[in-house]
Amino acid sequence: MKTISNAAGRQILSEINGEASIPYQGVGKYKPEGKKHAPSIASCSDYPADGNKVVKNLRTALEKAGLRDGMTISTHHHFRNGDFLANQVFDIAKEMGVKGLRWFPSASFPCHEHLIQYLQDGTIQRIEGSMNGPLGHFVSEGGMEGTGVLRSHGGRYQAIQDGEVLIDITVIGAPAADQFGNSNGLSGDSACGLLGFALADSEYADKVIVVTDNPVEFPCIPWQIQGNHVDYVVHIEKLGDPSKIISGTTQITKSPDRLLLAELTAKFCQAAGIIREGFSFQSGAGGTSLAVGEYFRKIMKEEGVRARFARGGSNKYLVSMLEEGLVDYILDGQTFDLEGVRSMAENPGHVWSSPFTSYNYHGKGNFAGLVDVVILGATEVDLEFNANVVTHSDGYLLHGIGGWQNCLFSKTVILPIPLFRDRVPVVRDQVTTLCGPGELIDVVVTERGIAINPLRTDLIEATKNSGLPIKTMEELKAEADRICGLPASPALDEKVVAAIKWVDGTVIDVVRQVSK
Amino acid sequence: MKTISNAAGRQILSEINGEASIPYQGVGKYKPEGKKHAPSIASCSDYPADGNKVVKNLRTALEKAGLRDGMTISTHHHFRNGDFLANQVFDIAKEMGVKGLRWFPSASFPCHEHLIQYLQDGTIQRIEGSMNGPLGHFVSEGGMEGTGVLRSHGGRYQAIQDGEVLIDITVIGAPAADQFGNSNGLSGDSACGLLGFALADSEYADKVIVVTDNPVEFPCIPWQIQGNHVDYVVHIEKLGDPSKIISGTTQITKSPDRLLLAELTAKFCQAAGIIREGFSFQSGAGGTSLAVGEYFRKIMKEEGVRARFARGGSNKYLVSMLEEGLVDYILDGQTFDLEGVRSMAENPGHVWSSPFTSYNYHGKGNFAGLVDVVILGATEVDLEFNANVVTHSDGYLLHGIGGWQNCLFSKTVILPIPLFRDRVPVVRDQVTTLCGPGELIDVVVTERGIAINPLRTDLIEATKNSGLPIKTMEELKAEADRICGLPASPALDEKVVAAIKWVDGTVIDVVRQVSK
Repeated sequence: MKTISNAAGRQILSEINGEASIPYQGVGKYKPEGKKHAPSIASCSDYPADGNKVVKNLRTALEKAGLRDGMTISTHHHFRNGDFLANQVFDIAKEMGVKGLRWFPSASFPCHEHLIQYLQDGTIQRIEGSMNGPLGHFVSEGGMEGTGVLRSHGGRYQAIQDGEVLIDITVIGAPAADQFGNSNGLSGDSACGLLGFALADSEYADKVIVVTDNPVEFPCIPWQIQGNHVDYVVHIEKLGDPSKIISGTTQITKSPDRLLLAELTAKFCQAAGIIREGFSFQSGAGGTSLAVGEYFRKIMKEEGVRARFARGGSNKYLVSMLEEGLVDYILDGQTFDLEGVRSMAENPGHVWSSPFTSYNYHGKGNFAGLVDVVILGATEVDLEFNANVVTHSDGYLLHGIGGWQNCLFSKTVILPIPLFRDRVPVVRDQVTTLCGPGELIDVVVTERGIAINPLRTDLIEATKNSGLPIKTMEELKAEADRICGLPASPALDEKVVAAIKWVDGTVIDVVRQVSK
Repeated sequence: MKTISNAAGRQILSEINGEASIPYQGVGKYKPEGKKHAPSIASCSDYPADGNKVVKNLRTALEKAGLRDGMTISTHHHFRNGDFLANQVFDIAKEMGVKGLRWFPSASFPCHEHLIQYLQDGTIQRIEGSMNGPLGHFVSEGGMEGTGVLRSHGGRYQAIQDGEVLIDITVIGAPAADQFGNSNGLSGDSACGLLGFALADSEYADKVIVVTDNPVEFPCIPWQIQGNHVDYVVHIEKLGDPSKIISGTTQITKSPDRLLLAELTAKFCQAAGIIREGFSFQSGAGGTSLAVGEYFRKIMKEEGVRARFARGGSNKYLVSMLEEGLVDYILDGQTFDLEGVRSMAENPGHVWSSPFTSYNYHGKGNFAGLVDVVILGATEVDLEFNANVVTHSDGYLLHGIGGWQNCLFSKTVILPIPLFRDRVPVVRDQVTTLCGPGELIDVVVTERGIAINPLRTDLIEATKNSGLPIKTMEELKAEADRICGLPASPALDEKVVAAIKWVDGTVIDVVRQVSK
């Protein structure tokens, strides 16, 4: 495999899965040329006059869609670890004897471990998308024939829009759908809130199959997925396991360490003047992130300020802030609990968004840049604030990028992370896998101090008399190394098992096989 | 000008405005090949990092968008006869000395008479879009340099989507918009309800300018136009005259003749079994159409049935049916009065749609085919049920096609029209301009009898003992001719002044210059 160096100094492959790669060139440096992907022109005369696109079953739909060797099949991950559908698609592919497929999910989960057999027998040639848990482990040890490609949520939209990835067939699980294919995620046993991760697929895939376990009479309102993009509709018994699709209740961390991280993060934002009337924020649904939100709530109430909007992942805490009037709008990309689903269905201030609105870097702007502060995680950071979210320090690829890279374009990016995990330091000389360039990461909050990126002289100035434990990244690293000892490098082979795309489709790093 | 005959037997031009035309081939016969129009790939790095796209004024925006000779400039007509914006765009073009523009409005109105000077001095080379009133008169008498092209609402979406019409710059008047370009029509002095006619323009135009007289803080919710498609935002004092943008109140006809037409139409639908639980209908905002709706309401209440949906143009009568629970949903394409705007802003059952969802014939189906009955107008019909909506019997081009052609795909199409107007018979040997093929028109209701298309044996059978005055079209024509005398043919020159497109982009007829 021929490698080349990119602008971040990472050795990447010059060719990935037979296609030339474009090396990462720096933030905002790569200028795309050319035109968006142009799907074929359809004609109503080829669709049922009465709008009824229901076919007998999923196999029939896949056959009509022309499923055959080497195709790209996409799915979405709004059903998270409760998804039954993706496995069924490839069970049918196997039955049909189809080989060499590219699976292009918006993310995969442990429930998709079922598909390892198809990676082994050649039904699936490779996965492009996050590989959380078992699939990541399998890929890390070199089990997959092709090279994995990981993209952010926005990068996935970009890749589809730009024609980098041509989807032959998309299979969209829809918690509610009418016979015409209009769909949403708001009702039914498999309710997941919204279907934004399937938006690009519905717009650009050659054939679009909507699968629902909750047929509703036309019109299915709102139409998060528009039936005008849909070829076939399939009714099935069950799209997934509701208890794993959506949490009955999300929970704030009870860990004192993580609560401390959250409190320090919120206090930092307060000291820096970020929490002010009309501000905006994004915080995830992990325990620490939820706790940050709760500290925000407390500060907002004390100071009598309201947020104009919060970007979700939504959950009951964020919903209650909306309902209390502390937040004018939730701009939601995925709902994490039942309260999120209820709110989205009921409240016009709880707005469903998509990777197009929020994250696509090859649009005329996106929402990420308008967010005042975003709270993110990381597995590792280095002295230049570069960060990793996909691999552990042992080299295993166990997480997807999600919206992480996209959110780095927000006005202030804060990573609240422990200084070490299981006695493995999180601040490193060099991150195992580079996912986000340090120039976009402003603050790293640890339980033993807060490091501010030297580029953000405004934040350094604003917080210098705050009494917060501001340190340099070098100081944090020294402290971690003193406690844990110098970390060993992961044992990696030369073979590249996955590529990490930057938001513009360039390759920012690669993941190498873990030595066994 | 070389002419060729199309499948309807009409002599059309083989070339229009320098491009080869595709002759109409029959309903559902023309199969498009190729790909949709692919806009250029943008990059966030070329847009303001904070999402603020506001520029100084409209001229600045047009200059930044690169306005120059020969470009195609599009506008929408949601401000109807109250629009101030389109005139300003071409005033600026004139100031800048730009020549030979193609104006591509979704419709034009008498308020755009102002632009005749620019058609005369070469600023505008031609209009593609309906030319209601004075512009139509001007074009009919041969005043325009290029050939006009009239498309239905769906045909306009199709033409943009398919790349038949490449829009260089669209200027979208938005009653509410944020700095990022997210826009809607729901609030402010220029509130018009929705912005669906600008949807295709926002998606496919090279440069998108949003102009608002009501800047709102990000996020402008709902985003009927998505800021991710927008290049520049302009703030101006006033987009239009509110009293002409939207009616304070729509009124049902008081004319006994038209009330009779409406009553006969509703009774026909009742007799034919169309008004049943869960049915759907579309009826316009003209006096007769409104009256049909009111008769529907009466019948629905008597029979205890509810409609699943009504397609709008919405108005206070339809809104009250929604609020009374007689209709589950209004799928609205344009709002005609203040009650319509209020309802759309407040009621999740009052849904804004677009020519994409409802009318685009080059999609994977559209909503028109799902509607049980649609009530439309016509200026003329012939013995084969062919109909005209654009020209009067004197040959003057005075109306646009609107959604009329698209609605012909509904399950039952009824035209309630007077048998004669000003002693000019409406039933003709041949319509002056063919806009819709008779095979798609099911029933013509006149004050002197109802003609059912012989193709609809089901309707003939269902209504044969209804007591309604069912007649043949021949009988109706004979009666009209007996009363009015045989009509004279219009005096027309050879010169073609406009082409009429069918829903699939083929040319169904042309309009010739009126002899002076």
